[in-house]
Amino acid sequence: MNMSTETPNSTIKKSVLLSGVNVGDTAICTVGKTGDHLFYRGYSVDDLANNCVFEEVAYLLIYGNLPSPAELSAYQEKLSGLRDLPDIVRTVLEVIPASAHPMDVIRTGVSVLGTTFTEEENNSSMENVRHQADRVLACLGSMLLYWYQFSHNNRRISFATKDESIGGYFLSLLHGRQPTKNQLSAMHASLILYAEHEFNASTFAARVIAGTGADFFSAVTGGICALRGAKHGGANEVAIEIMQRYNCPDEAERDIQRRLKNKEIIIGFGHPVYTVADPRNDIIKKAAKKLATESNDLTLFDIAARIETVMWQKKRMFPNLDWFSAVSYHMMNVPTKMFTPLFALARVSGWTAHYIEQRLDNKIIRPSANYIGPEPKDFVK
Amino acid sequence: MNMSTETPNSTIKKSVLLSGVNVGDTAICTVGKTGDHLFYRGYSVDDLANNCVFEEVAYLLIYGNLPSPAELSAYQEKLSGLRDLPDIVRTVLEVIPASAHPMDVIRTGVSVLGTTFTEEENNSSMENVRHQADRVLACLGSMLLYWYQFSHNNRRISFATKDESIGGYFLSLLHGRQPTKNQLSAMHASLILYAEHEFNASTFAARVIAGTGADFFSAVTGGICALRGAKHGGANEVAIEIMQRYNCPDEAERDIQRRLKNKEIIIGFGHPVYTVADPRNDIIKKAAKKLATESNDLTLFDIAARIETVMWQKKRMFPNLDWFSAVSYHMMNVPTKMFTPLFALARVSGWTAHYIEQRLDNKIIRPSANYIGPEPKDFVK
Repeated sequence: MNMSTETPNSTIKKSVLLSGVNVGDTAICTVGKTGDHLFYRGYSVDDLANNCVFEEVAYLLIYGNLPSPAELSAYQEKLSGLRDLPDIVRTVLEVIPASAHPMDVIRTGVSVLGTTFTEEENNSSMENVRHQADRVLACLGSMLLYWYQFSHNNRRISFATKDESIGGYFLSLLHGRQPTKNQLSAMHASLILYAEHEFNASTFAARVIAGTGADFFSAVTGGICALRGAKHGGANEVAIEIMQRYNCPDEAERDIQRRLKNKEIIIGFGHPVYTVADPRNDIIKKAAKKLATESNDLTLFDIAARIETVMWQKKRMFPNLDWFSAVSYHMMNVPTKMFTPLFALARVSGWTAHYIEQRLDNKIIRPSANYIGPEPKDFVK
Repeated sequence: MNMSTETPNSTIKKSVLLSGVNVGDTAICTVGKTGDHLFYRGYSVDDLANNCVFEEVAYLLIYGNLPSPAELSAYQEKLSGLRDLPDIVRTVLEVIPASAHPMDVIRTGVSVLGTTFTEEENNSSMENVRHQADRVLACLGSMLLYWYQFSHNNRRISFATKDESIGGYFLSLLHGRQPTKNQLSAMHASLILYAEHEFNASTFAARVIAGTGADFFSAVTGGICALRGAKHGGANEVAIEIMQRYNCPDEAERDIQRRLKNKEIIIGFGHPVYTVADPRNDIIKKAAKKLATESNDLTLFDIAARIETVMWQKKRMFPNLDWFSAVSYHMMNVPTKMFTPLFALARVSGWTAHYIEQRLDNKIIRPSANYIGPEPKDFVK
């Protein structure tokens, strides 16, 4: 069986289980009554992306309210102080091969980081969970780049940089120089937009894990496991691969039309929750255009925009957040395999909010199945 | 907040989300029309536990049919040949502290084992997934005991034993001698009973992960994450802690009655799916009694049996599989923290069957939530 991400003869709509079915309560996030907007704890995602740094939104999700300027400054300082990695995590990262997918690297890194906490710490209070969340948020970039620079360039990097933001820190470790203002602001916007999205598959996996009473590191590890798939976080990696097939917008248009005739699904378009548009698209598209303009190379952006036009004209399908996120990351020279890990880095804040909500709700998630297998058989030996 | 596993003023029934709600199709397992029986691919779990070795049932779940005697023998030989651990997995296990929970050890071990496979191998065919499943099944015991003996006894163990079964191999590595006939047969029964159980929380987590198109190792890692919680696999560890509070059945009876009056939940009793009895209880209870008799110490068994009587008389609640599994493992001198990992070892076979089913179904699992948070707020900076 070919597990290609573009499956002929099926549509996004048909291939979603539990779509539109309310399986629990949440106070964290809503797509709103109109179904084409997005709010984190009551704040419009537009307002947050246009006015906040990512750490403010992470604080909102993890601690429940927007921080005051003093709280934000203290929070950024706290996070900066938590970037170092324990020796055992470094040792583990050093043995993971360069060929590994970085999602598997952080899946392993977060899991082993969890073993440095005692069972008591892992089963104490939600206050402690928030501290563990800050730890993961702060050092996920360290894990990714420590492994990346060691396995690819045989270098043990230092974590001392001047960046006060999580996104800036990631880019500094990756490129060995501080990001431009546009890059920094694109990272904030992208991480804010990726931070939270109700009962998406990875968050739902994290909640199923939380529901059994498992610890925070298990829930985050499970979130990473689910985010990895091409139908979820992995979509931004597939998106860039699609755009990179083409040398110019005209070529893209011709080929996408051909593929649509063959009923191919084009990853990066449509969304199980939104029907008219992804409310996050405008913001990330603007950020992508700024980066492309800054780097004097609009080719990829133009190809992405042309495919957007074709998809709307031919299928009334709109790009989701992954589409122009892929353009943005690529214009910042982020390696493709680091796209989904950046999504994970942002979503840790949402997973944390949902972990805490599920634990306080104190319910296990245990559905049933419709049995379609064989009737009872006699056992003959 | 105290996250004790025994929560006053709530009941098992009330604390299950999606209970009884069919969220998908499966041909793997059913509790049957009467709701008090259990079938794997049409075979009654009684027949399987009374007639099969665990590897037969793992084959049934992973490959879809019971093996012929020749197939079984080849399968056991294949599994025995896959017990060794790659060097990078050994290195990782050596740095995980002795204080870690062994569930976190295998969560990390399976995750890092996944990085030894290429992306192509992780995204190829279901035939390859079955091979990966056999690899995990075969070496999970190696991981557990390599870490255990290294971190607790500073010994690097060899994986060469004469055991042809997965359960026997585990006991041999743990105790440094081959198990008795009763121990071996109790291990087979317990692993068979733990192998599969429809859309339980860990399997459901694995399916949510599979639904995004993620790889097999991510799904198994996520299954381990969910199984860890005290309301799921962790229950067998809590069960033994409950029994060990008491020196004799009379003391147990008095104290359990007091706790029931205080509306405490007693872990190990009741089940979200079964209403009358857990069909697996009789088999594991018999195995536990045999082991207790063999070791000339019936105290723990008698305490467990008395609590069973009290729970039925006072609450009409029956023991689930975890209750006498805990007695069985304890009578085999398995350390308490290894109870849930044994459950995981068995359930890998069920997770694999569900992973394959979900991938072939090709659907993402993406529910919605009922929003109970704040109304839209103006953003003021």
